[in-house]
Amino acid sequence: MAEKITIYDISNKLNISAATVSRALNNNPKISLKTKELVLKTAAEMNYKQNRLAQALKSGKTNNVGVIVPYINRSFFSSVIRGIEEELSPHGYHVIICQTHEDVHNEIEQINTLLNTQIDGIFMSVAKTTQDTKHIEKVVKENTPLIFFDRKKNIDGISSVVIDDFKGGYLATEHLIKQGCKKIAHFSGDLNLEIYRNRHEGYLAAMKDYDVTAIPKFSMQVNSKIESGSTAINDLWNLSEQPDAIFSASDYAALGAIQELKRKGIKVPEEVGVVGFSNEPFTKYMELPITSVDQTPVEMGRNAAKVFLEQIEGSKTLSIEKKVVLTPKLNIRESSNRELIKKLLVSKE
Amino acid sequence: MAEKITIYDISNKLNISAATVSRALNNNPKISLKTKELVLKTAAEMNYKQNRLAQALKSGKTNNVGVIVPYINRSFFSSVIRGIEEELSPHGYHVIICQTHEDVHNEIEQINTLLNTQIDGIFMSVAKTTQDTKHIEKVVKENTPLIFFDRKKNIDGISSVVIDDFKGGYLATEHLIKQGCKKIAHFSGDLNLEIYRNRHEGYLAAMKDYDVTAIPKFSMQVNSKIESGSTAINDLWNLSEQPDAIFSASDYAALGAIQELKRKGIKVPEEVGVVGFSNEPFTKYMELPITSVDQTPVEMGRNAAKVFLEQIEGSKTLSIEKKVVLTPKLNIRESSNRELIKKLLVSKE
Repeated sequence: MAEKITIYDISNKLNISAATVSRALNNNPKISLKTKELVLKTAAEMNYKQNRLAQALKSGKTNNVGVIVPYINRSFFSSVIRGIEEELSPHGYHVIICQTHEDVHNEIEQINTLLNTQIDGIFMSVAKTTQDTKHIEKVVKENTPLIFFDRKKNIDGISSVVIDDFKGGYLATEHLIKQGCKKIAHFSGDLNLEIYRNRHEGYLAAMKDYDVTAIPKFSMQVNSKIESGSTAINDLWNLSEQPDAIFSASDYAALGAIQELKRKGIKVPEEVGVVGFSNEPFTKYMELPITSVDQTPVEMGRNAAKVFLEQIEGSKTLSIEKKVVLTPKLNIRESSNRELIKKLLVSKE
Repeated sequence: MAEKITIYDISNKLNISAATVSRALNNNPKISLKTKELVLKTAAEMNYKQNRLAQALKSGKTNNVGVIVPYINRSFFSSVIRGIEEELSPHGYHVIICQTHEDVHNEIEQINTLLNTQIDGIFMSVAKTTQDTKHIEKVVKENTPLIFFDRKKNIDGISSVVIDDFKGGYLATEHLIKQGCKKIAHFSGDLNLEIYRNRHEGYLAAMKDYDVTAIPKFSMQVNSKIESGSTAINDLWNLSEQPDAIFSASDYAALGAIQELKRKGIKVPEEVGVVGFSNEPFTKYMELPITSVDQTPVEMGRNAAKVFLEQIEGSKTLSIEKKVVLTPKLNIRESSNRELIKKLLVSKE
């Protein structure tokens, strides 16, 4: 491999300091125009290749953007990323992805990594464990555009694209009420996260609007895991009364609930209707497909990308803070659809 | 924002050159232990934060590695990434992820992006459409360690971690033969990819070893998609004879096959046994859990990371080319297990 030309070779050749060469290449105003021209000419003659890193330091643009998500293998997050890629790729941007595994320490490290690799912007959905937001504010201070999607923190100057989780919770609960369910339980997820609080409030609001009593014991914090959904069903069935429907803020917990209900010989949806949230692909693969709230993640990604492009274009003159709220869609399937199940049973007779 | 402390401030304070400070901070052996301690102590007192970028330009090390996969949302790939992260994170590495969507053009762009962001190494599983490998050879030429996992190209000097796909195909087919299946069809995936050729050869070898005739029409190229699996079943059921088992090189196609067989009123596994490949999470969530070959992806990621660490440590003195082959595991579940189904039926009576 040919020896790589470095900034020190130019410095030696011109007998000026490497720092001066570096500043000249970076168009630092402290360096005279004459020196800049000399350095650039010499660099070109020596076939000096500034790496993108150095270029980035100069122009401030790399055409790379970073996306930070809790997990890459959750269909919701990978679909948002696809939306971002679809929108940004025609503009020449490359997308770099990091996953936090819901750990704020990873989130801090990854923000540093991305800032150090000089990305043009960061898209992020915050980890569950994120309380302090200094590392996020740092991005804004460094003038790097940051766009929240789905899970956000309320920080001035940061745009966000979210869905109307309240409405998602409302639609799911309203649907169960219309199926004739009277005792609807809610698996809420971690209420430290705004999205789960909003879904929970949507559930309570629908119950109130339709004069259905929300039993406090039936509101449970359940992790987004299959086992947690099945444990929650066991907890409910140890109470003095049981629900006739579950609205779960997580598809995984909904799946666990259905599995446990089946093990107990309880019919879904005839005895207990179940609705999940996120429209994970498996919800429709099941033998008993699961009703779920679709968060339109590809749309979310596309919208986040659009906000970023606006911000990049406008960043020289003004700072835009944009809050985009998308409307979720309820996909009604067998796990909650008593009418459909009746029809299917009749047709089999 | 407070003025940033630079290497020059430490240099001024200690009255030694910036280069010496830099070397001391980078643990250069030319610098005395005494100087190193002095520099580190002073740097800490002054609250000096080394810029990773500057570190990279100086030491050629960023502690970032890149991973390129076809899709982040395939459980297999996300699990390999988890294995890489688990192994590298204690060594202070950060993992940056890119997805090609099976498009070689994206693959080329992403390699350039990663090289330009000065990663310390690249892990990759090549896209289906990759024929020419100039962009991959470029990585080797630039002296950046590259490790293939799962899908590789045969290029000198590149280490790889793969599973024994031949054995996976053999184990799956042998299991179906032992269940009493005599007419086993194979859904093979794209035979341009070595992994699918090897699984197909494993299937043929098992058939031969057990004196079961492989019917050529029963070997079909089927995409890794649910719809493709169901279409393939329709194609088979239009032939003059039908198989009594399917070994699918893809879990998605296996799922589509099972769904279509059920629609036709054909019992799985009693009339047709089905085995998939990859052990996607949904295979065990199904009401009829699907037998599948587990590629031990977390192990694969961990092994790839270990090869990388060896390579990084040894790179100054020698170039290591290592080929690691992992053994797959067959997870036998209801979709192919006739004995189990018989027992379950008896216990219900």
